[in-house]
Amino acid sequence: MPAKEYLMIPGPTPVPPQVSAAMSRPIGGHRTDEFARIHQGIVEKLKTVFQTQNDIFVLTHSGTGGMETAVANTVNPGDKVLALVTGNFGERFAKIARAYGALVDEVDFGWGKDVDLAVVEEKLKANPDYKAVLATQNETSTGVTNDIAGIGALVAKTPALLLVDGISGVGGIEIKTDAWGVDVLITASQKAMMLPPGLAMVAVSKKAWEAVEKCRSPRFYFSLPAAKKAVEKWNTAYTPGVSLFYGLEAALELMMAEGMDNVYARHGLLARAVRAAVRALGLTLLPEERCASNTVTAIHGPDGVGADELRKVLKNRYGVVFAGGQGILKGKIFRIAHMGYAGKTDVLVAVGALEMALAELGYPAELGRGMKAAQEVFLGGSD
Amino acid sequence: MPAKEYLMIPGPTPVPPQVSAAMSRPIGGHRTDEFARIHQGIVEKLKTVFQTQNDIFVLTHSGTGGMETAVANTVNPGDKVLALVTGNFGERFAKIARAYGALVDEVDFGWGKDVDLAVVEEKLKANPDYKAVLATQNETSTGVTNDIAGIGALVAKTPALLLVDGISGVGGIEIKTDAWGVDVLITASQKAMMLPPGLAMVAVSKKAWEAVEKCRSPRFYFSLPAAKKAVEKWNTAYTPGVSLFYGLEAALELMMAEGMDNVYARHGLLARAVRAAVRALGLTLLPEERCASNTVTAIHGPDGVGADELRKVLKNRYGVVFAGGQGILKGKIFRIAHMGYAGKTDVLVAVGALEMALAELGYPAELGRGMKAAQEVFLGGSD
Repeated sequence: MPAKEYLMIPGPTPVPPQVSAAMSRPIGGHRTDEFARIHQGIVEKLKTVFQTQNDIFVLTHSGTGGMETAVANTVNPGDKVLALVTGNFGERFAKIARAYGALVDEVDFGWGKDVDLAVVEEKLKANPDYKAVLATQNETSTGVTNDIAGIGALVAKTPALLLVDGISGVGGIEIKTDAWGVDVLITASQKAMMLPPGLAMVAVSKKAWEAVEKCRSPRFYFSLPAAKKAVEKWNTAYTPGVSLFYGLEAALELMMAEGMDNVYARHGLLARAVRAAVRALGLTLLPEERCASNTVTAIHGPDGVGADELRKVLKNRYGVVFAGGQGILKGKIFRIAHMGYAGKTDVLVAVGALEMALAELGYPAELGRGMKAAQEVFLGGSD
Repeated sequence: MPAKEYLMIPGPTPVPPQVSAAMSRPIGGHRTDEFARIHQGIVEKLKTVFQTQNDIFVLTHSGTGGMETAVANTVNPGDKVLALVTGNFGERFAKIARAYGALVDEVDFGWGKDVDLAVVEEKLKANPDYKAVLATQNETSTGVTNDIAGIGALVAKTPALLLVDGISGVGGIEIKTDAWGVDVLITASQKAMMLPPGLAMVAVSKKAWEAVEKCRSPRFYFSLPAAKKAVEKWNTAYTPGVSLFYGLEAALELMMAEGMDNVYARHGLLARAVRAAVRALGLTLLPEERCASNTVTAIHGPDGVGADELRKVLKNRYGVVFAGGQGILKGKIFRIAHMGYAGKTDVLVAVGALEMALAELGYPAELGRGMKAAQEVFLGGSD
């Protein structure tokens, strides 16, 4: 029998059995009263998750399509856009804006660092003509969470729109869309939302709608006006991913039953336990603790042991799948996801297997030492 | 107990249990050897379905996103495009081209009619500067199959590209992509491919690639060059709908086991049986028999009985769900799908329930008469 697999990459993430069961239901039509009821229920619950009264659209494509939806509906060729880059996905957001002809002012804060608000303030002051600011709530590639509240407070004073990629954060890390002034919030199904990939969710503010209506960029499948017109009757502009909607309904019911405060507390607890274990094993986090993500932990490859070599042993010997580094961090870090359908026992598996793999590779880490640190966090003894 | 539901709309269509089971598998990572193997196997089998050696991409969005992929990668603002319209989805293709700034020469052959090749020949002769010709293999809204072989032979003699929406045809009605000169073929998961919605499949010819490389339209999620670069390593440019890929692998295995000739013969047989039953009941098909689709049959509402009233009785009393008319045909026709996971017993259910609903609504159709006509087709006795 092959090793039982534990998928601990930052998306796709494990799907709860309740969600799998919902997705296995015989498929129904999408232009029916039943589907409209499911659609409406989903959007109402998403308003709780997003903390917003803005319009929310559930769109059938993955998260990158959601980022493109945000750009294609608000940015015209020649518009000035500020891109706050802290890693691979911040870069992707900037690339999308460039594909639409924007003049992108890209500020790279460094991979592993978070956005420096003083720089944002200065940039906004020097450039009152930014059409939009592109930010990443949780940079999946580096395990860094940015201060969206702080960025939002600065952008709100300007005419610029704040477009936020919340793909690997929303549902695991709190975001207050309305209170923080997020004009377009994007998330996707396959991260903390506990579904397979294939859906993006996009919230659009009144301030954003003014830009959407004036936007001249070509768009059809990504058209927010088309989505809005359809949703007035709880319809979708194009054929929706019906089975994923069934799953999303089930996933949101799980989240509502747990309570969003508890969901966020659980993600925080798991992240603290993983970080404590990593430190106890003498390993180094990529980001500072201050801005370390609650959904994914990025760790430098141990001295003398390649990060990818470590991942290979973990996967082949224990069925435990961590993610590697992306872009300039390829081969240099490994990442442990604890997002969505994740609990304390997952951390025990991750840390226990990590300790064994390190031992096999000759890294001098005492067996059980990381485990003890994680357990102490769970028992409230430390950290 | 509520009536057992029989979904007979032209997408989404019923999902075979083998496909549901595959989609319920615990989710895995998408940047793994296992996923690459699945991806490669899917593309190889799709080459058999599409009858092509062209590049094929499996993209995470619904069919309309596939149509937009075709346009966004080949059409520049100001390009002249010929749109061959035979219904709602032909109109949609023209709208997408217009959204990208094309000068669209739209020829409407009438809803319920097929494309007239003489008109196409004349148009191509008079306009040697068409960049692309947009055609619909199977017009879902009218149950008409167009002669793609004939259109392809005409377009192949010109520099124009032939972009074909095969969404409700491919996998149920034969298409010879290479032999017929189809430059971009689009299909989607939720029709004859027997999956839930959420994937589009796009085949791209060498002739099309030349245009793709020169294309200036903005695109990121829909970028074919990005898709091509990724697929060189059996990767995807953005997170794929992993569970739908598992399902697609299973669906293609079912199709390969049946054999594509048998798949097409089955669709033809079911369609002939439905048409025979409809005629025997004194109802009228929307299209001529000559161009009637093998995946969906469009029927005029019976005299004195509204098409939508009939559909309501069928759904509420028998759990049998037919589709209504779209656009200018709304309320005037009903459509019975027999595509994908459909067999003889489905036709028995459709025809038997139709007869009972007609009787309840006072339409003078002899019970069992349509059934007998269908049975005779199955037994090879007539038609």
